[in-house]
Amino acid sequence: MDELKNKALDKHYEWKGKIKTAINFSIDNKEELAIGYTPGVAYPCLEIQKDYSKSFELTRRWNTVAVITDGTAVLGLGDIGPEAGMPVMEGKCALFKRFGNVDAIPICIRSKDVDELVRTIYLISGSFGGINLEDISAPRCFIIEEKLKHICDIPIFHDDQHGTAIVIGAATLNALKLANKNINDAKIVINGAGAAGIAVGRFLLELGASNIIWFDKNGAIFRGKEGLNGIKNEIQHISNPNNEKGTLLDAVKDADVLIGLSAANVFNKQIIQAMTDKPIVFPCANPIPEISYEDAKNAGAFIVGTGSSLYPNQINNLLAFPGVFRGTLDARAKDITLKMKKAACYALIELTKDYLDCEHILPSALDDKVHQKVAKAVYDAALER
Amino acid sequence: MDELKNKALDKHYEWKGKIKTAINFSIDNKEELAIGYTPGVAYPCLEIQKDYSKSFELTRRWNTVAVITDGTAVLGLGDIGPEAGMPVMEGKCALFKRFGNVDAIPICIRSKDVDELVRTIYLISGSFGGINLEDISAPRCFIIEEKLKHICDIPIFHDDQHGTAIVIGAATLNALKLANKNINDAKIVINGAGAAGIAVGRFLLELGASNIIWFDKNGAIFRGKEGLNGIKNEIQHISNPNNEKGTLLDAVKDADVLIGLSAANVFNKQIIQAMTDKPIVFPCANPIPEISYEDAKNAGAFIVGTGSSLYPNQINNLLAFPGVFRGTLDARAKDITLKMKKAACYALIELTKDYLDCEHILPSALDDKVHQKVAKAVYDAALER
Repeated sequence: MDELKNKALDKHYEWKGKIKTAINFSIDNKEELAIGYTPGVAYPCLEIQKDYSKSFELTRRWNTVAVITDGTAVLGLGDIGPEAGMPVMEGKCALFKRFGNVDAIPICIRSKDVDELVRTIYLISGSFGGINLEDISAPRCFIIEEKLKHICDIPIFHDDQHGTAIVIGAATLNALKLANKNINDAKIVINGAGAAGIAVGRFLLELGASNIIWFDKNGAIFRGKEGLNGIKNEIQHISNPNNEKGTLLDAVKDADVLIGLSAANVFNKQIIQAMTDKPIVFPCANPIPEISYEDAKNAGAFIVGTGSSLYPNQINNLLAFPGVFRGTLDARAKDITLKMKKAACYALIELTKDYLDCEHILPSALDDKVHQKVAKAVYDAALER
Repeated sequence: MDELKNKALDKHYEWKGKIKTAINFSIDNKEELAIGYTPGVAYPCLEIQKDYSKSFELTRRWNTVAVITDGTAVLGLGDIGPEAGMPVMEGKCALFKRFGNVDAIPICIRSKDVDELVRTIYLISGSFGGINLEDISAPRCFIIEEKLKHICDIPIFHDDQHGTAIVIGAATLNALKLANKNINDAKIVINGAGAAGIAVGRFLLELGASNIIWFDKNGAIFRGKEGLNGIKNEIQHISNPNNEKGTLLDAVKDADVLIGLSAANVFNKQIIQAMTDKPIVFPCANPIPEISYEDAKNAGAFIVGTGSSLYPNQINNLLAFPGVFRGTLDARAKDITLKMKKAACYALIELTKDYLDCEHILPSALDDKVHQKVAKAVYDAALER
């Protein structure tokens, strides 16, 4: 890791920022100044005052997404503070531009108070065409997103939830296909009930799953368990049909899919070996997974996907968010609906159809075509509503 | 004006935004992705967590200024709302980039409440290296700027105040020089006691003026006048040494300089003709001045300067703000002090020394050298503190 550390620091000192602004028109003479700025600029202002929707046509708003964090759950680093989260936000904005041609603006907010975050984001939301929430800790992220969806007139998307769900959804469906299994009957164990874990499970239910068990630090989530608050109180009613109360090792004994969205090294060989035939394992903790790709394979896993680009089947949000926002902005959709998220997921599956095998259950995020296809699918789904 | 209106609207529909984002590094393979985003990006994050000042080195913060409005005093249009102000903010951001190489981000805020605006701007201020307040109505703008200066650790600059003051300061000193007059003895009448009018007068006092009279809609501001609140209560003590209580026409009778920062067509020939010898007149209302350039000249004005680029002596904030922020950011100054503002003003004067005459009291804002000189002067002044 020391080599990566040195390279990453050297490059960040060299770049002094990963994004910058650029101008869309030339300003070299008085006439250009009079048209782009005063006095000519008064006319587009007055057009927007008359018709608010013109703010999406006469300014960059139609293509602009704010990438917003409070710095409370940055990567696997936890609550490192808003300014320290900025390199991630800038990186995300660079990816938005590179793969979706979206103008993304990184904003870090110096508050951890849910209502204050919601109010602040609402107050600046007229500057943007969409909001990508990023690295906000659970369960606050669920409440913040929900409240913002109610009061804002632009799409709100917590990528740690929905981007992850779209990609793992596609990976799961493809892996089950290769294993000749059906999502409706599959038993799926999700270790981790944070932002990503909850969202992935909910999305898999929408994709047809009927038997999901979530585990958090206190073990399996089951109906009637004490101390289940907020979102965990909700999911007890939609999961764990047999109300299993045992350990992770007990739960995986007849599981087809094991998804880790938790912490480094919490899975082991014994757990993989306890699963049914053709075990599908997605240890997604970053940068160190719940079990390494090799160890999972050596323990008998049929298909393994991790967050790492060094092994097959990288499970990477980058497969989703640029295309999801590109399609959403192009359709000027006011929300990113379940239908649009499903369309993104099926587009990823469609993209793999010519080469799908156990080491290629997802397309490459570096392939421009991927983002175009996702964008088109999301766009079409938005307009079909 | 119809031709300008059509051109401005056509161009704004064509541009669909005057600024955009661009990427500072290439993202074409797994290694670049691993360095600029996960997992490598964790290392600059951790550096900033350890040492907050590194947020100015490892992200774009060192070069990033937010251009923020609440849409309450946009150009001469008044309170048109935050989203309708966006074309001006975008235009300003384009000028920041073009003339100062500053990455400026336009933000409009959906609130008119002073405390809420202050809190919102503070909460997002960790994302930027400076804040340019824009088109916020007086007297709220004074309070907002003052409060932000106390709580933020980055420079706060209300351009409608200080940018205007720097440029009119330079214009006044140059014009008085051509008239063989001294600012210490000159009588200066300022019509308009809004953001710009107040700031210009205060700055002229700092440049040596001792006899300034402000007029607002209720006439001359004098000591003991009823109904003077807030900032107007303050300025009664630093202005109008002879406590004149008459009309504008009375006040200009021995005035050397008449500055308009008020409204269209409120000056006339009679007012100009009533002034002392070699009258200096700056009718700066935009887009229609207090009196036209021709009418003022025909009435006997010695020097006239307006906001228009169609006549000599354009008084344009663009002469100041790109260089002021460039120098401030380069010095990583935490405030834009009086000394720095004076340095910008004297730099503008220095730039005219080879061609100064009654039709060339200010340099051209389209000359790149101007912004470089202003930036250098502000930078030097910041480091001298």
